[in-house]
Amino acid sequence: MTDVTPHSDWKRKLHEVIYGTHTPAGKIFDIALLVLIVYSIIIVMLESVPRFDVKYHSFLNISEWVVTILFSIEYILRIICINKPRKYIFSFFGIVDFLSTIPKYLALFFVGSQYLTAFRALRLLRVFRILKLARFVGESNNLIKALRDSRAKIMVFVFFVLVVSVLLGTLMYIVEGPEHGFNSIPHSVYWTIVTLTTVGYGDISPQTSLGQSIATLIMIIGYGIIAVPTGIVSAQYASKKEGSNNVDGRSCPNCGAEIKREDADYCRKCGHKLEED
Amino acid sequence: MTDVTPHSDWKRKLHEVIYGTHTPAGKIFDIALLVLIVYSIIIVMLESVPRFDVKYHSFLNISEWVVTILFSIEYILRIICINKPRKYIFSFFGIVDFLSTIPKYLALFFVGSQYLTAFRALRLLRVFRILKLARFVGESNNLIKALRDSRAKIMVFVFFVLVVSVLLGTLMYIVEGPEHGFNSIPHSVYWTIVTLTTVGYGDISPQTSLGQSIATLIMIIGYGIIAVPTGIVSAQYASKKEGSNNVDGRSCPNCGAEIKREDADYCRKCGHKLEED
Amino acid sequence: MTDVTPHSDWKRKLHEVIYGTHTPAGKIFDIALLVLIVYSIIIVMLESVPRFDVKYHSFLNISEWVVTILFSIEYILRIICINKPRKYIFSFFGIVDFLSTIPKYLALFFVGSQYLTAFRALRLLRVFRILKLARFVGESNNLIKALRDSRAKIMVFVFFVLVVSVLLGTLMYIVEGPEHGFNSIPHSVYWTIVTLTTVGYGDISPQTSLGQSIATLIMIIGYGIIAVPTGIVSAQYASKKEGSNNVDGRSCPNCGAEIKREDADYCRKCGHKLEED
Amino acid sequence: MTDVTPHSDWKRKLHEVIYGTHTPAGKIFDIALLVLIVYSIIIVMLESVPRFDVKYHSFLNISEWVVTILFSIEYILRIICINKPRKYIFSFFGIVDFLSTIPKYLALFFVGSQYLTAFRALRLLRVFRILKLARFVGESNNLIKALRDSRAKIMVFVFFVLVVSVLLGTLMYIVEGPEHGFNSIPHSVYWTIVTLTTVGYGDISPQTSLGQSIATLIMIIGYGIIAVPTGIVSAQYASKKEGSNNVDGRSCPNCGAEIKREDADYCRKCGHKLEED
Repeated sequence: MTDVTPHSDWKRKLHEVIYGTHTPAGKIFDIALLVLIVYSIIIVMLESVPRFDVKYHSFLNISEWVVTILFSIEYILRIICINKPRKYIFSFFGIVDFLSTIPKYLALFFVGSQYLTAFRALRLLRVFRILKLARFVGESNNLIKALRDSRAKIMVFVFFVLVVSVLLGTLMYIVEGPEHGFNSIPHSVYWTIVTLTTVGYGDISPQTSLGQSIATLIMIIGYGIIAVPTGIVSAQYASKKEGSNNVDGRSCPNCGAEIKREDADYCRKCGHKLEED
Repeated sequence: MTDVTPHSDWKRKLHEVIYGTHTPAGKIFDIALLVLIVYSIIIVMLESVPRFDVKYHSFLNISEWVVTILFSIEYILRIICINKPRKYIFSFFGIVDFLSTIPKYLALFFVGSQYLTAFRALRLLRVFRILKLARFVGESNNLIKALRDSRAKIMVFVFFVLVVSVLLGTLMYIVEGPEHGFNSIPHSVYWTIVTLTTVGYGDISPQTSLGQSIATLIMIIGYGIIAVPTGIVSAQYASKKEGSNNVDGRSCPNCGAEIKREDADYCRKCGHKLEED
Repeated sequence: MTDVTPHSDWKRKLHEVIYGTHTPAGKIFDIALLVLIVYSIIIVMLESVPRFDVKYHSFLNISEWVVTILFSIEYILRIICINKPRKYIFSFFGIVDFLSTIPKYLALFFVGSQYLTAFRALRLLRVFRILKLARFVGESNNLIKALRDSRAKIMVFVFFVLVVSVLLGTLMYIVEGPEHGFNSIPHSVYWTIVTLTTVGYGDISPQTSLGQSIATLIMIIGYGIIAVPTGIVSAQYASKKEGSNNVDGRSCPNCGAEIKREDADYCRKCGHKLEED
Repeated sequence: MTDVTPHSDWKRKLHEVIYGTHTPAGKIFDIALLVLIVYSIIIVMLESVPRFDVKYHSFLNISEWVVTILFSIEYILRIICINKPRKYIFSFFGIVDFLSTIPKYLALFFVGSQYLTAFRALRLLRVFRILKLARFVGESNNLIKALRDSRAKIMVFVFFVLVVSVLLGTLMYIVEGPEHGFNSIPHSVYWTIVTLTTVGYGDISPQTSLGQSIATLIMIIGYGIIAVPTGIVSAQYASKKEGSNNVDGRSCPNCGAEIKREDADYCRKCGHKLEED
């Protein structure tokens, strides 16, 4: 995972357990951490349900403290057993680990500040560590790569959707007006996106014939252009897959260049004649 | 279907009728069973409609008993005429067959226990036997294979959707709060999934500007990432299809080139005449 | 369009105008008919709007009669000028033409019978004739062909969706029950399909935690499996397109068989050596 | 962008700044314009929110005037510094620029006419100029090209959706009738499109069993045929992409084989060294 192995022997062993996933101890540690994270998420969720919070308040509070202390110990151990602590502390997961530990301590000093829940919720981000465990890493990397490669296309698409929503939302505001629930342009734009993405809450819906006609238009646009991101990702995914077929392909015995076309008789890089294998 | 044919002659014939689909008697049996299953489903459904149940209670009850007894006979015959009954009894359809027969008998002893309906509903699973009948088996196998091959990818995707839903649902709980219907984090997560999957019931909808902005974000994410499973299945389906042309493919005995078209009589590479196999 | 040309000269001319689309007169006739069909649809629609019907009742009624008489004349001319009237009368469009003409006459004898509107609505089917006009025929044929080829796959998929809906709908009926709006199993199945297809009216929505969890599951299934029909049609469409590439491809000069692979050096049917062109 | 460069030196410089995007000054101008457009959109939006309009009316009004005057200056400069002003004035962006400037002036003479907002909203169209700035031009051109190429197919599809909606909408009007909210055929058709596109507001929903069955059918059709536009755009996108690899492709000067990889230095068929062009 990381090449910053510590010098002293116990540090190296600790490092293997905490950061490694290959040793039995490392696997057990990861699974235990996973259970703890899921447990902490369930606690945060149950605390928000009034029915549960009234009944089991002290139990939930103690559980929170136990989880927080365990997370704190883990955080400190992670810093100790690594060679370059700074690199971990300012990494994405380092910051998430810190932010998911600190709110409970802060709650001691700033009692009643419910906005700290916001930070406690960040603990959920640690679930992404689960991916490190599973054999799904390869698949998820593929997905992320396909999404990253089509990022520019998707941004253009989202931008286009937003502009269309602003234009049609303004039109709906003019046509329907505040008396039918279209209170303001931002609210109309919100409604347009609700309709365009085929979510359709129904808290506001057009009342005039003209408004319903425009709504129909928006729906058909939304129904039609959903094809665009799908087409993009499909094409990207297919092309990426094609590319990956060549990973275990042949390479030129002369210059080592990958042979990208199955039907090539000569290396495209050095012109070396390829023997059939 | 199964190679465990019974020894005695009448058992073999019965086996052919019940398990086989090639003989005329076997086909008639399967179609009769199909009609009975659909009929039993309709009865269960109608029993649940108060209007019908009041009017035709005794008719529905008698029908239930007739279906139950016929299913019981079929279940016993299936056990008798097979060589290794244990194999059938503990197979998926064996368990479904048993569970779809037993609840009506149990209802004799535990009167009023309406939760037995749950088990009676399992009878519906037998509908899947219909697939055995039809020429759709091939198509449905293809579909199942494509889905099975992309299982890991789809699980990563569903996991990603769930994590995003938990994060954004928590955010919505903090932003909107119980006063706008977002009673608890689990309820907010439920709402987030309703929005992300573009279902949009509208029983809860954000009231604050910030909440509506986040809702807009969730919708656009949901609208955008629907492309991901589609891309996965499309690619899988396309690749499987391509592959299937060659899976049991012949190659030219003269030059070794792959025979890419099933209807080829001569090798497209060396012109060698291909023998029929 | 049809090879049953009439014998007499004026019949042949009339046939060219009514059935043909190549002569200027034929084009004018088709466009006039198109305008008339759209006009008749608008009238049927406006008649159903109470506000319009009260105001312009006599105008709408007269318009209906004019359209009906013109359609009657067209229907009679179509029968006269064709060689085998029986073939037209019992064709799809022949029946539609008849059914779209007759209701207004029937209304004279069975006054007040508003169910005749049902037949009058069939007139709308004639809109499909518009496709004959446009250059869109090719595109629409392609679409229809792609859909027809993937018919078996789509039926398996729809069947699967229905079985899943019946199972999960029954489960929701047991979990939520009539007190939360899930009155009966058919109603619950209806709700399940509303949710699975991501329509989500919100007229009924689950109230219990377990019900909302199952609803979440249904949504994610619905959100995930929408990829399946898309994948099917995409693959079908792509493969059909590939196939059509060969239409203006090479054919074997020896046996006339189509050359389906670009890289073929020998005919796959007769083994004839192919020259590069 | 345009080859109509002005004669005089200051005009050429101004032209470079306003129309060009390559010089530093041109980039700064474009970014400033972008900020101004977004700012003007935000003002139009905030003006429509009663809460904001009451509080900051004079500030918003002055901002509007400043933006309007700046846009006016820009419009005049664009006309001055171009060789053929007529070409710009009657171009798409020329008309948008004019229409987004004029309403504020008109408001001086026709006070109270709130319908002028409609024209002020057109200013939003100028956002499309942002695309000129970004490196997303290529991507957006690809998207537009893919959409344009599949225009005929998409129109056939939309036409098909509309005809199906009219037919099923009429059927629902007959089945459900005005007493369940299906007031008229146009209203029923509107409801059908809301359902078919899986938007599902829920302001109207069928009450009878038959109505709910037809609604189920509409949903499954809508859920199924969403695959069609997706398949079209996917196929179009994939084919365009494939094509673009070879469109300006080289072929081997020795054997004439197509050069399929951009980075090839030797022909993959005959091993001939390829010169850089």
